[in-house]
Amino acid sequence: MTRVAIIGGAGYTALELIRLLLRHPAAEIVAISDIQENRPHIASIHPSLTGRVDLCLEKLTPAEVAARAECVFCCLPHGVSASIAPQFLDAGARVIDFSADYRLDSAEVFAEWYNQKHPDPDRLGKVPYGLPELFREQIRSAPLVANPGCYPTSAILPLAPLLKAGLIDPSDIVVDSKSGVTGAGRTPTLLSHYPECNESMCAYNLGRHRHTPEIAQYLGWAAGEKAGVLFTPHLVPMDRGILSTTYSRPRDGVTEQQLLETLSSFYANEPFVRVVERLPATKDSATTNFCDITARIVRGKVITVSCIDNLIKGASGAAVQNFNLMFGHPEAAGLA
Amino acid sequence: MTRVAIIGGAGYTALELIRLLLRHPAAEIVAISDIQENRPHIASIHPSLTGRVDLCLEKLTPAEVAARAECVFCCLPHGVSASIAPQFLDAGARVIDFSADYRLDSAEVFAEWYNQKHPDPDRLGKVPYGLPELFREQIRSAPLVANPGCYPTSAILPLAPLLKAGLIDPSDIVVDSKSGVTGAGRTPTLLSHYPECNESMCAYNLGRHRHTPEIAQYLGWAAGEKAGVLFTPHLVPMDRGILSTTYSRPRDGVTEQQLLETLSSFYANEPFVRVVERLPATKDSATTNFCDITARIVRGKVITVSCIDNLIKGASGAAVQNFNLMFGHPEAAGLA
Amino acid sequence: MTRVAIIGGAGYTALELIRLLLRHPAAEIVAISDIQENRPHIASIHPSLTGRVDLCLEKLTPAEVAARAECVFCCLPHGVSASIAPQFLDAGARVIDFSADYRLDSAEVFAEWYNQKHPDPDRLGKVPYGLPELFREQIRSAPLVANPGCYPTSAILPLAPLLKAGLIDPSDIVVDSKSGVTGAGRTPTLLSHYPECNESMCAYNLGRHRHTPEIAQYLGWAAGEKAGVLFTPHLVPMDRGILSTTYSRPRDGVTEQQLLETLSSFYANEPFVRVVERLPATKDSATTNFCDITARIVRGKVITVSCIDNLIKGASGAAVQNFNLMFGHPEAAGLA
Amino acid sequence: MTRVAIIGGAGYTALELIRLLLRHPAAEIVAISDIQENRPHIASIHPSLTGRVDLCLEKLTPAEVAARAECVFCCLPHGVSASIAPQFLDAGARVIDFSADYRLDSAEVFAEWYNQKHPDPDRLGKVPYGLPELFREQIRSAPLVANPGCYPTSAILPLAPLLKAGLIDPSDIVVDSKSGVTGAGRTPTLLSHYPECNESMCAYNLGRHRHTPEIAQYLGWAAGEKAGVLFTPHLVPMDRGILSTTYSRPRDGVTEQQLLETLSSFYANEPFVRVVERLPATKDSATTNFCDITARIVRGKVITVSCIDNLIKGASGAAVQNFNLMFGHPEAAGLA
Repeated sequence: MTRVAIIGGAGYTALELIRLLLRHPAAEIVAISDIQENRPHIASIHPSLTGRVDLCLEKLTPAEVAARAECVFCCLPHGVSASIAPQFLDAGARVIDFSADYRLDSAEVFAEWYNQKHPDPDRLGKVPYGLPELFREQIRSAPLVANPGCYPTSAILPLAPLLKAGLIDPSDIVVDSKSGVTGAGRTPTLLSHYPECNESMCAYNLGRHRHTPEIAQYLGWAAGEKAGVLFTPHLVPMDRGILSTTYSRPRDGVTEQQLLETLSSFYANEPFVRVVERLPATKDSATTNFCDITARIVRGKVITVSCIDNLIKGASGAAVQNFNLMFGHPEAAGLA
Repeated sequence: MTRVAIIGGAGYTALELIRLLLRHPAAEIVAISDIQENRPHIASIHPSLTGRVDLCLEKLTPAEVAARAECVFCCLPHGVSASIAPQFLDAGARVIDFSADYRLDSAEVFAEWYNQKHPDPDRLGKVPYGLPELFREQIRSAPLVANPGCYPTSAILPLAPLLKAGLIDPSDIVVDSKSGVTGAGRTPTLLSHYPECNESMCAYNLGRHRHTPEIAQYLGWAAGEKAGVLFTPHLVPMDRGILSTTYSRPRDGVTEQQLLETLSSFYANEPFVRVVERLPATKDSATTNFCDITARIVRGKVITVSCIDNLIKGASGAAVQNFNLMFGHPEAAGLA
Repeated sequence: MTRVAIIGGAGYTALELIRLLLRHPAAEIVAISDIQENRPHIASIHPSLTGRVDLCLEKLTPAEVAARAECVFCCLPHGVSASIAPQFLDAGARVIDFSADYRLDSAEVFAEWYNQKHPDPDRLGKVPYGLPELFREQIRSAPLVANPGCYPTSAILPLAPLLKAGLIDPSDIVVDSKSGVTGAGRTPTLLSHYPECNESMCAYNLGRHRHTPEIAQYLGWAAGEKAGVLFTPHLVPMDRGILSTTYSRPRDGVTEQQLLETLSSFYANEPFVRVVERLPATKDSATTNFCDITARIVRGKVITVSCIDNLIKGASGAAVQNFNLMFGHPEAAGLA
Repeated sequence: MTRVAIIGGAGYTALELIRLLLRHPAAEIVAISDIQENRPHIASIHPSLTGRVDLCLEKLTPAEVAARAECVFCCLPHGVSASIAPQFLDAGARVIDFSADYRLDSAEVFAEWYNQKHPDPDRLGKVPYGLPELFREQIRSAPLVANPGCYPTSAILPLAPLLKAGLIDPSDIVVDSKSGVTGAGRTPTLLSHYPECNESMCAYNLGRHRHTPEIAQYLGWAAGEKAGVLFTPHLVPMDRGILSTTYSRPRDGVTEQQLLETLSSFYANEPFVRVVERLPATKDSATTNFCDITARIVRGKVITVSCIDNLIKGASGAAVQNFNLMFGHPEAAGLA
């Protein structure tokens, strides 16, 4: 059994993480740390956990957490996370960070998109990006892993193999993504107020969503050159699920068959990527750690369609997959 | 044209009211009063009104409102409304009050359920309840009308005729109501946060919902004796609509045929009540001012099923219907 | 490992059953039998199973099924099931039947509600009802178990302990239930066509829903006398979940505290019943095998509110729980 | 009053059309023709119309229809419509056709996309496309108008002014559209079965949706040269609404300001197009005849976002707007 702690327990990713860990044969949740003073039982925050886990949200120092846990799942907001994660590392724990803090290589890019100075710039560029399909070996031995953003996962998985194989032009990629509302978090706002977002759809943060540089960085990495990425997120009236439709230009002579074969071959041994011929629906991968991908060539453009559950493959499932790699458990443990 | 003002313009009932009044052939909105300082354009609060009405939310005194408007639609919270409505009346305007302040006859019952002293107790019992199907004549000439609550409308319309006709026992009535989420208002809360209430259903305020005494008062009025009412509201993942299922005991020998005939006959000339043989769905009356009603006798109990749009027949449509009666317009004007 | 077969693989209960069994540490799906000729891969019927199970729908005789499997999950329509289940039994398999065929004790009551002669009347009354909370010991050794209906599970679990303890009057019980749309099955109809049932709610089959006699039989069993049950199902715009609100009369002097204590004590050792003080929402138990229950006394009536996931505790999860009991696996195996 | 008939009354566009016409001050519905034999009352097909209109679906010949009605709204499937519409015209009625039959200029393109020979090829190219914003004068005097498709309306309105002004390159336009489920019609299918499409999103008909040539034809018309259009429709779990996000290349030096000013100026006098600075949500235009449009330049691409109600501006509202133009009524009559 690996002893794990969760930092920041009140949100949807923490809830989903707890659900997955409760089913994990080799993980034991030993602490849930949060800022609330009165040690509320986790079931008072997440009623669905009633009778399933007997833990309270505690206010713990990083040292106290590290004394109990070998692995820390850090579900804190960006900016905060990189102020605290180093303390867990110093105290001897390994960390899986859900925030964006360690995903970008450059403190300048971070500052530009997140409007703040990075609290731990020296680590940037040395922390593996927690997409096992691309960085499995680095993840295995890393003390700290940057768990990917939900949108980036949905965009990078279909496009990276095509870019690596040189099948598409990296300079002009459109990612049109559609997400369920859990992606907006658990804090009530007018945008996520039921009568506002139910029976409605909108684009938001057009041209300035913070997942943009993350997508661009890893598509660029896959291409071996700078990637030009236009990312447009939309909010869809459903709880969970992301569907990303991408548009790019094929290199001369590339066929649809080639695209599908390249994807199938790249992901042949991956437990959680399914390259399919049909057009996937988000429901096919809902409540699972799967990413479903297909590709087409239509009127001279490459289209990929990919679906994930934003809370699982897009957050907590990916974190458990990283955890399994880091601690030598079977990669799919707790994720079946 | 009748000049009307709306007090409290930021909520869903105000939005629905504005939509209805824009379509009304004989109403002109001359002011929307609200507490916001900066005179925001109504379309900045309700984007759906863009290009449809050119009005700003203004901070106006009751006298200023009454100087412009003959009729004041008062969309304020309970307690607040009865502090201000008298000032509109004194200044010569007639008032349709959306709050619960003038619905109950008794200041004691009000204090018990609303946990506050009534600000205007002397008017209680003299203000007609704005259910035209029961109080049409009183409404026509009233300076002030108490617009009914949404749940009470859905419960009183099916039961009052049966009680008046002595077909059911008033002492033991269960009202099991199911409402869409707009009923919870426009202020974001965890209860109405999309990922909490979507794909979920719950009962709430069991035994202590404030519409209980309102239902009991008017069922008692219809029965000519005290009514025993158990009211259970539920929240349903949909924008709008209330379906109320009621259970009561028939008097000896009463038949299903008699129930339906009594309802049909009672509402024969009503423009907005439809007594139907089928089991109505909330969608049948959605975005309309209709109340659909049916009745059954099953295993010795009378069951009624009734549906309304909570924002229209349950609030703003009823208000316009009352407005039409008060100002001599055709009763269905603006409501077709 | 226990080898299991599923008969009738194209519906939602079969899909949910497969999902649960894939996660079960001691069950191996060896056959999925269906009437389709062309041996379609299960993932072509249920895309979410892509890459998770490699089985085709086969047209198999009962003997062929029994040759492969020790346990048969029979997901066939009522009437059909009782024609085939005996053949599995004769061939040596044990059967968990999802249909209503073996739930009622009386062939006459079956004929009255299902409009057909029962195909296997001699077994009626000898087949344990698959509610482990009430019939655990009988289930352990039974060759055939009648898996309960979804609505009955939601109604019997809160009421049976109160009836057994003599706290409520069995003669006058109202069960007002609200269900998600998966309960209507996977065959497209106008009732379950998205634009018809989305954003809408309705009552249906008022007074003639076939779960009525099933509820009455087991409440009567719990009470030790005939139970009078009025059951009203409603359709709610959500995928899954049932919330049942019941109304009954307390025996003299019974308190709310007594109700909650009786329920808590009755279910103290049950792995899948949670007696809670709060009003449960269906989302709390969604995708789990839990039944959440609370009780209140309001205005002289006992109200219970209970929630289950109709596809899990209301169907496939209950079946797995029964399977675990029948084959000596830990009762919660595959259901965590 | 203009006497109108509706051909094909059972679908969602017919229902919406009837609702709009009932509110129209100068239209009288004199016949609803359909193939059903037994003359069902319209309210038995559309329960929401109970008490609002007293008409039965009749099986009428074109001559019988034309004897009663001056204007025929033809809500028939493609292929069927162009076989019957000429008969209405010959009998002296004017026709607004909801099908795709008269939208394309070329019988060859029709045959290619609709897999059938066009029944009335000689009229192609002579029938005005019922988008008043582009073809108002032609519509006024036309005997037959081709009511636009829902997706094309959402794509052409934002792009045509930009193409006409030469601000974007017509050769490489991506239209990524998202539609509510009413767009799939009223016939129950697995795709539109509630538990399949609720809480799910998918792309469909990728590269072969029949609205593609319609979009391309009118964008080409606006550009004055052939337009290259890639159209990707998606299904979203909501009743109504289309949001289209388009991606194109700006001509050198074009600014965002220029885009917005061009759109604002082009639509300055249009009653039903709102050029907005905010990102519109489909709910803003739901149940209205508005099209909301905005535009951005992001990373060197022009993005437009546009929203309509697919049943109103995308079908029946547009038809009423055309009707008003054809018969000299105020253009917004019945559409406020």
